[in-house]
Amino acid sequence: MSRWQPNARGRLRQAALELYGENGFDQTTVAQIAERAGLTERTFYRHFTDKREVVFSGEVQRVLVSALADAPVSMTPIEAVTAALDAAGAVLDERRDMTRRRQAVIAANPRLQQQEQIKYATLAADLAEALRGRGVEPSSAGLAADAGVAVFRTAFERWIDEAEERDFGRLVRDTLEELAAVISG
Amino acid sequence: MSRWQPNARGRLRQAALELYGENGFDQTTVAQIAERAGLTERTFYRHFTDKREVVFSGEVQRVLVSALADAPVSMTPIEAVTAALDAAGAVLDERRDMTRRRQAVIAANPRLQQQEQIKYATLAADLAEALRGRGVEPSSAGLAADAGVAVFRTAFERWIDEAEERDFGRLVRDTLEELAAVISG
Repeated sequence: MSRWQPNARGRLRQAALELYGENGFDQTTVAQIAERAGLTERTFYRHFTDKREVVFSGEVQRVLVSALADAPVSMTPIEAVTAALDAAGAVLDERRDMTRRRQAVIAANPRLQQQEQIKYATLAADLAEALRGRGVEPSSAGLAADAGVAVFRTAFERWIDEAEERDFGRLVRDTLEELAAVISG
Repeated sequence: MSRWQPNARGRLRQAALELYGENGFDQTTVAQIAERAGLTERTFYRHFTDKREVVFSGEVQRVLVSALADAPVSMTPIEAVTAALDAAGAVLDERRDMTRRRQAVIAANPRLQQQEQIKYATLAADLAEALRGRGVEPSSAGLAADAGVAVFRTAFERWIDEAEERDFGRLVRDTLEELAAVISG
């Protein structure tokens, strides 16, 4: 095996998602992932804490929270949340196929589904904290963060559908409009 | 010990919440709860599956879901969700002190906090399903359910505050109005 390992992280992720899809998440070992990627277990652990982190890297969450914190101060809470969702969309749109495969793995495993719910709860708490950091009053910060997560979830569900062609930012706008219509009743 | 055990469930719950508050949830045993309540462990297990079920009985969730399913068909999704929140409020307002003690137990234990997040995620899924059962289109059902849970959480946080005197139904209306204002930006 060559010491030079171009895009080791990407190769490991692809190998892991293939194996999770073929044999199930629980049945797959780190040794199998490394072998499929043509890399060593040691290299796997340089890139991921464990096989679950391949599924939940937290990258989209980090993009959301930092984009929210960095949004222009003139923006209202929901405008800043929408800007953050757009920033996440730019990341997601570049990896739509990979994200669909990843989502199929989660859909097939109840423990991963539970982990995903906890991820959304943590995201809502982090967005609320970022909004409070912008000077937004706590209850409005909580509501804007929860609305943002609700829009993210619904837009995401549409976006991963094979038949859906709109990009993530477009779906965010359409979903936010639908949420406003639902709430005004 | 008398064979006649009036309000055994209530006595066990009160004893459990006292002990969780005094010694911590993890440190409390079912034997201690039964002893404090003046009842047997066997009686405890007739009323609760385990010591966690004292904290998460699921009763408010069941009231929410069945009230939503039973709301008049003429109601819009958000009206039906609001009616369900009112029904939950009627139950909550009768046990405000107990619920405050319970919430203090959750706040002191990270695993219970995680369990509470999962409970909210399950509630959102159950409310969405009940709305789809009313013929609401899936994405609107999901958004109305998520909005309902967002309103519940914020109203609940306000309601358990010792300084807050508004009842749950009043807080639901005020919070829903605030959510509409936040979303219209």
